[in-house]
Formats: sequence, C-alpha cells, structure tokens
Amino acid sequence: MERPLILISNDDGVQAKGLYALIDMVKKFGDVFVVAPNGARSGASMSISSHTPVRNKLIKEEDGVTIWSCSGTPIDCVKMAFEVLLPRRPDIVLGGINHGNNCAINAHYSGTMSVAIEGCIKYVPSAAISSGYLDEDANFEAMRPVVERIVEYLLREGLPEGVCLNVNTPPRDEFKGIKIAKMGMGDWHDEWQEMVHPHNWKYYWIAGYYAPIDPHDETTDTWAYEHGYVAITPIQLDSTAYSAFQRLEELKIDN
Amino acid sequence: MERPLILISNDDGVQAKGLYALIDMVKKFGDVFVVAPNGARSGASMSISSHTPVRNKLIKEEDGVTIWSCSGTPIDCVKMAFEVLLPRRPDIVLGGINHGNNCAINAHYSGTMSVAIEGCIKYVPSAAISSGYLDEDANFEAMRPVVERIVEYLLREGLPEGVCLNVNTPPRDEFKGIKIAKMGMGDWHDEWQEMVHPHNWKYYWIAGYYAPIDPHDETTDTWAYEHGYVAITPIQLDSTAYSAFQRLEELKIDN
Repeated sequence: MERPLILISNDDGVQAKGLYALIDMVKKFGDVFVVAPNGARSGASMSISSHTPVRNKLIKEEDGVTIWSCSGTPIDCVKMAFEVLLPRRPDIVLGGINHGNNCAINAHYSGTMSVAIEGCIKYVPSAAISSGYLDEDANFEAMRPVVERIVEYLLREGLPEGVCLNVNTPPRDEFKGIKIAKMGMGDWHDEWQEMVHPHNWKYYWIAGYYAPIDPHDETTDTWAYEHGYVAITPIQLDSTAYSAFQRLEELKIDN
Repeated sequence: MERPLILISNDDGVQAKGLYALIDMVKKFGDVFVVAPNGARSGASMSISSHTPVRNKLIKEEDGVTIWSCSGTPIDCVKMAFEVLLPRRPDIVLGGINHGNNCAINAHYSGTMSVAIEGCIKYVPSAAISSGYLDEDANFEAMRPVVERIVEYLLREGLPEGVCLNVNTPPRDEFKGIKIAKMGMGDWHDEWQEMVHPHNWKYYWIAGYYAPIDPHDETTDTWAYEHGYVAITPIQLDSTAYSAFQRLEELKIDN
C-alpha cells in the first residue's frame, strides 16, 4: 500500500521556517509534497495570477519530501500541484505553518486559509495551520503534538464535504487545550500608515490593529486563542446566507 | 438632509466600462464616491498589499461623482476609502459592474465580491454586481432596472448584519426575472495552459473551464444565471461550519 500523500503550501513562501517545521512534523505520516510561493504572499487570500504567467522550480526531492517553488499565489500553488506537479491525488492538504495567527474574519484575507479552501474545493480534507509567533526565526516545536493530532485525525476520519479547518495556536510554549470555536467578528482600525517619499509624495502601508466586536464571547476562535487555547474553526465553502432568503423575497421577480 | 453616499470599487480597474455603467445607473440615488484599482485586478479575491506601499490619485470630482484611482487591490481600495478618502461614512458599498460572472464558488476568487465583503465587515449594506458580458466594450444597459431595484432596496431596507449580496446577470438583453439563489458548488478543469518561452522554459497561464457539480440543481445561482435569470445570492461573512462542531468533538482538549 502506498504511503499517504500530504500536499503542503503556505503564504510566507518556500523559504519560511514555518513550512519546514510543518514538513518535519508530518513526514512520519506519509510522503510530503510541497508547492510553495517563491516569496512572501501574506494577505494573498484566494487571489489567482490572472494577468501574470506562472513558473515552477524543483527545489528538492529526497527522503519522501518533494519541494517545488512557484512564482504565483498560494491558490496558484495548490492548483498547480493538483493539475501539473503531483504524482497522484493527495490524501490531505495543509497550509502553513503561518507566521502569525489567522483568527476570526482574518481567515478571509489569509493565504494560508486559502490553501485549505482550495483543497476543500477539490474534495480533499484540508487544514490551515497558523501560529501566533510572527518572528522569521520562531520556534514552532510546541505545536508538534497539536499538528500530529490533527493530521492523524484528517487521515483517519476525513472531513465533511465542503468543510475545512482553520487552526490557530497562540504564541506560547504550552497550550491550555484545544477548543472547537466559531469565527469571531471584528474589524481593523488605523489601517493605513501614511508616509512621505523623498520626492514629497504620500504613500501608505497597510497596518493597524484588529479589534473583536465582542472580546468576551468565549465561543469565538479569538477568545480561545487569546486565552491560551488552540482554536480549531471548521470553515465552510458554501457562503450562502440561507437565513436571509426570506427577507430578500421582495427582490425576487419570477416570470 | 444629505444625499445618500454610494461607495463603489471594482476589480477590472478605474478604466473599466462596467465601472462607468454602474456610476451612471446609481448617481440618481445619491453622491457617488469611487476608489478603484489603477489597472485590472481580476481574481484578486480579498488580497491586501502587505508588501507594497499604496498610492492614490484623484481622477475626477464633479456633479456629485468623485473618482480616485489606487495602486492597490480592491480590498485596499475599500479600506483606503473608509479611512483616508471618504468625506463621510457611505450608506452603501457596491462592487462592479464586473466584466464576467462571479457565480458559485467563484465568488471566493472574485475581487468584485471582496468589495462587498469588506463593506459588510464595516457594517454597510453591500453588493457585488457582475455581468456575464466579458468584452471590454460590453453594453450593460439591460442591467439598469436590476441595479436600480437593488440599490433602492439597499438604501431603504439595508441588509442583515454580516450579510452582503452577490448579483450575477447573464449576458443577455433581457432577463427572465430575478431569483434568490444559493452559491453553487463546482470546480475548474484544465486549469493551466502550458506555454514555452522563446528561451525554451515552460510557463503557465491560468485558464480552463468551470463545471458545476450538479448543473440541474435549480436552487443554485449557476442554474438561475444559465437559464436567463438574474441570480442574487446572499453571502455571509461568518464562514463557520456549525454543522461540523459535533463531528470534531474528538479533537477537543479542554483542560
């Protein structure tokens, strides 16, 4: 019997420490196949390279670990893996380990999360795995048992169709436990930092801080994460707001 | 009393015909404020410019219509509008008119849809409006009564918190009606077209065709759109798959 095949991508790029930490944690479960962007793509969301051609480069192929770099977005990487590069259909798809958490609505902006969503579109059990440690040289070792638990679960049980996981671990050496939590709601504030170019024109960096609407809601991923728990949020591909159908009846015209 | 303020962005860029068609359709309802990308950003999804500074340029300000171009993504445009450029909080946010439909799971890749989702994050009633006409020089005039109906509705009734609209009109001169429909499921096939550079290296363009899982499901946006109806899908910001919580209990560790 073939070993399970684990596809990994990320949004921090093929050089990121979090990627190699994840490879090291999961390689005991199967063959590992990586297609990762050739540089940082933070905040890439589910963007695709519509207007730019995409190239791939084989970086490494040894001991059951194959690593390709790709000039596109995280979504391009996953699509390239499935159609062009993978030797066979993967058993699971993982995004990460991201340097920085993707709790709450920030999952929508996240390239790490997009890896899992694209895996989900392709009917493969998928998870995005993010750490609160932002440093390039962060130590992700505390996450090892959590990652092993999730990967073992995904390989054994799979996930319901159209559902993938958003996993966020706080920047700690020990976690209080694992909570299944809902996506928190909130928004960013002071989002733009104005700068002045030497030639005197203004430009802006995206920045600011995220504030949850209700920081005391213990059912959110943000609460769990802020209180030392690993937050696992099941994310669904179907974004339809079924609860709004009745209210929108008035807009309908059915000839 | 001040006139309503309508914020518009898009992903086809500040030069796109669909943008000016939309401005023309909605300006009778209020003042129009546009912040649109300075070029095409198709498939930008909810990406943000994390690694690139962003600049803005005033293009036009007359007769109640203000147009800024922005060097960033559609999400950058909306964030820039809210924090830096808008004179006051807008009453509604619109994305479009997109040249090309954003039915089904393609809403996840869409920059037009992302405009509405970002408006929704900021608690403003928001809609993404897309046409099946892809041509740069498409005639969007048939959409006028649909757009008017939706804008009038959004200004009068608003939307439930955390819900925005994905509107898709088929490429026709007449529509059979308007259906409130769910997001269809499906996937792309033959996603990469391989090309060879004059120097003999391979590169790829993203392409292919979208195939719905169940083209006969009359409750989907894709079905409505393919059968001549305008499809309106309410989209929710909260992506939590609540139905999966019980199944994931096994993963939980609560100390």
